[in-house]
Amino acid sequence: MPQPRLSFLSMSYYDDLFTVLRFASISTDPAHRGDVRANANWLVNKLRSLNLSVELHETPGHPIVIARNQHIAERRTVMIYGHYDVQPVDEPELKPGEERDPNKHWMTRPFEPTVDANGILFARGSTDNKGQHMAHLRGIEETLAAHGELPVNLIFLLEGEEEIGSPNLKPFLEAHRDELKCDLVAISDTGMVAPGVGTFTYGLRGIACLEARLQGPERDLHSGIFGGAVMNPNTAIARLAATLHHADGKVAIEGFYDDVKDLEPWEREAWKGLGDGDAETLQLTGSTTLWGEPGWSSIEQRWGRPTAEINGIGGGWQGAGSKTVIPREAMMKLSFRLVPDMQPDKILQLAAAHLKKHCPLGVKLDIELGHTGMAYVMDPHSPFGLAAQRALKTAFGDAHPIALIREGGSIPIVQAFKDVLGVETLLLGLALPDCQAHAPNENFPLANYEAGVKLNQALLRELS
Amino acid sequence: MPQPRLSFLSMSYYDDLFTVLRFASISTDPAHRGDVRANANWLVNKLRSLNLSVELHETPGHPIVIARNQHIAERRTVMIYGHYDVQPVDEPELKPGEERDPNKHWMTRPFEPTVDANGILFARGSTDNKGQHMAHLRGIEETLAAHGELPVNLIFLLEGEEEIGSPNLKPFLEAHRDELKCDLVAISDTGMVAPGVGTFTYGLRGIACLEARLQGPERDLHSGIFGGAVMNPNTAIARLAATLHHADGKVAIEGFYDDVKDLEPWEREAWKGLGDGDAETLQLTGSTTLWGEPGWSSIEQRWGRPTAEINGIGGGWQGAGSKTVIPREAMMKLSFRLVPDMQPDKILQLAAAHLKKHCPLGVKLDIELGHTGMAYVMDPHSPFGLAAQRALKTAFGDAHPIALIREGGSIPIVQAFKDVLGVETLLLGLALPDCQAHAPNENFPLANYEAGVKLNQALLRELS
Repeated sequence: MPQPRLSFLSMSYYDDLFTVLRFASISTDPAHRGDVRANANWLVNKLRSLNLSVELHETPGHPIVIARNQHIAERRTVMIYGHYDVQPVDEPELKPGEERDPNKHWMTRPFEPTVDANGILFARGSTDNKGQHMAHLRGIEETLAAHGELPVNLIFLLEGEEEIGSPNLKPFLEAHRDELKCDLVAISDTGMVAPGVGTFTYGLRGIACLEARLQGPERDLHSGIFGGAVMNPNTAIARLAATLHHADGKVAIEGFYDDVKDLEPWEREAWKGLGDGDAETLQLTGSTTLWGEPGWSSIEQRWGRPTAEINGIGGGWQGAGSKTVIPREAMMKLSFRLVPDMQPDKILQLAAAHLKKHCPLGVKLDIELGHTGMAYVMDPHSPFGLAAQRALKTAFGDAHPIALIREGGSIPIVQAFKDVLGVETLLLGLALPDCQAHAPNENFPLANYEAGVKLNQALLRELS
Repeated sequence: MPQPRLSFLSMSYYDDLFTVLRFASISTDPAHRGDVRANANWLVNKLRSLNLSVELHETPGHPIVIARNQHIAERRTVMIYGHYDVQPVDEPELKPGEERDPNKHWMTRPFEPTVDANGILFARGSTDNKGQHMAHLRGIEETLAAHGELPVNLIFLLEGEEEIGSPNLKPFLEAHRDELKCDLVAISDTGMVAPGVGTFTYGLRGIACLEARLQGPERDLHSGIFGGAVMNPNTAIARLAATLHHADGKVAIEGFYDDVKDLEPWEREAWKGLGDGDAETLQLTGSTTLWGEPGWSSIEQRWGRPTAEINGIGGGWQGAGSKTVIPREAMMKLSFRLVPDMQPDKILQLAAAHLKKHCPLGVKLDIELGHTGMAYVMDPHSPFGLAAQRALKTAFGDAHPIALIREGGSIPIVQAFKDVLGVETLLLGLALPDCQAHAPNENFPLANYEAGVKLNQALLRELS
């Protein structure tokens, strides 16, 4: 492991973070169920060692861990939320003689945290979300070590199913509504616009997922013997997928934009000053050309406009060499990103109707609806919003004004906190734009971990 | 293993066939290189045991095995060709609780030959091509056992690269043109129109393959953070693939049909009487609806018209659950089936030009050209054609007239035999329409093996 430059801090400052990064807590993959559980158990033991009151709650999926300090009636109650599950780590197999490419392959072992000479920590989950919630945990630990108590009533809630849409969290909140009563929620699971720029996220896109499968012939066919006479499911899935967008980038599903609330003029104005706009999107993605809904900048497309994306498409032979087959089936996985006031279930119904209407002849369409989450927008100028911005100033200093942004990702449970507990959520992200969440070489600067530790302490003070 | 009903024959009659079916000689997969080699070595030893003169010829890929009897100047020289390599055996992973489905899963182990109560042999390669060339080998063995010699000069050529387009066979023929001089070639690697109906195939479609890869962003992106602003390679591959056909099923590549020689009226008339036509294609494929070039029956579409098929398409997350990713790349594998007088290289150029012209913005297109083979048609009423039909009568009896057909598959080396050795090829297939070549549960009736053994002996007599 390269030696990090750790300023005044000793390695032990990071020990717990490195420990949790070694758990391959991939929630979507049944083969990693035990790793998810081991991560949860570790959190229970760690939080108990801080003399917090800790519960591990079973769910039909992965467990929820909750830690509390002693609750005092007159104090404000703050819930801090994080998730200890991570995305899968798939990468293409190396062809004979091919070298690893950092754009598509992991250059370090994804579950062996590795720090480079610039103090950047590489590991799956380093930014999404272990690095961020472990900074809060460390902040709590430091406050308790210094003062023996916290300035607020704390509910520290860590779930293991965020990457699969938190199917069991909302029912859990509903079942434990009274014990989870709080004044607000704080989450660090979002991004900063640039290094050192404290960033307050007041909006998120929602999400709605579905999978479409097409079955053509009853079995795989030889494409020489039968080719030309039957619909090939690969052709059908392509023809169907191609109907999702107009040529100009606009989503072609009928009614898709009906409930979209356009961005406010002040938002469009404020976002113009952030970063390098379209050039930054090109630089961050490495794409050669932008492509999206016409009439909006790429920042607006990413934060304030809805999308239809094909996360996966597949059918037939994708391995080495050729196989002259007409496969029996082909599939695609879609996710839609939503903005206020779109309703996820309505969007899934519109999408399903679109797919049925445009499904080619000669294949049978099966649609499986997936997880959903509402878009979320809060007022950044509310008292809690202003407190959050002061805490960000303390953590990141005065060199830059705090950026007020929305984000394109989805944290469906933010809507659940609002619906079930009736509270707003402060999104105080610590991730940088190139942290590669969900991609190979996910990373997190140790400096951001340090800032997160400070942020936690300032935030609890500001909210007390 | 279920007990077969073997009429008068003992199991030892099949021992050699079962032995070669146990070699997982998958030529396209580098991991199976050793199995391909082991199959070749077994053939060398077996053929030597018959007192034939045997050579194993190395190539840049898999070896070619050649066996000859003693050549006598005044006799006719017949080459019998077969291939000992097989297709891959991929099948979808079983989901938890899912039962194996014979339409997509192997119900027996693909490299453990298994015979059911109806005398049907199941194994990868049983029909394509081990069952067929091993019947010839057995026929040769029986003739030698009975008469001590064969009625013709024999060149028995077995290659290990047919399933990857025989890249090294044509150069081999060219390098050994003189030693391989013969009067004609006979191949059993085609189909019969129905059980018991001797079938003479006088035409084959050609083939031309290519793979297209699209790269969008430099790395996988989070579809929440970046979705809506860049071209998703999955969307791009779908949009590009969807341009390959018009809505009515006709191939949309400009110039694709320019060199197509239409079917002769006598062929269209003769094929009308074979099988159940469109109903049979529906039954064999299990498709619900036919889809193809308008104006032609499904038999004509399969045997006498060109196609563009997507053998594989893929990009992004195709595993369990969801992954909200915009992948850096997506791909498709195409194969075109060709008829006289289409030129494979010209078709690949036209296809590449089409893909370039229709490639969406925001992705980089890479095209890798694959293997090609010309279509082939011979005169079934020539003297060799008539001799072949007499041999088929001997093997299959007089209950049905011999069917004169073309086939949709491709045997590119038939064209190579014509080009390099200047000879015609007799295609005397032993496969039934439901033998599942290239698919799970590939099978071959033991009765067809028996017929093949007789066919070999009758054919060498008829040609002597």
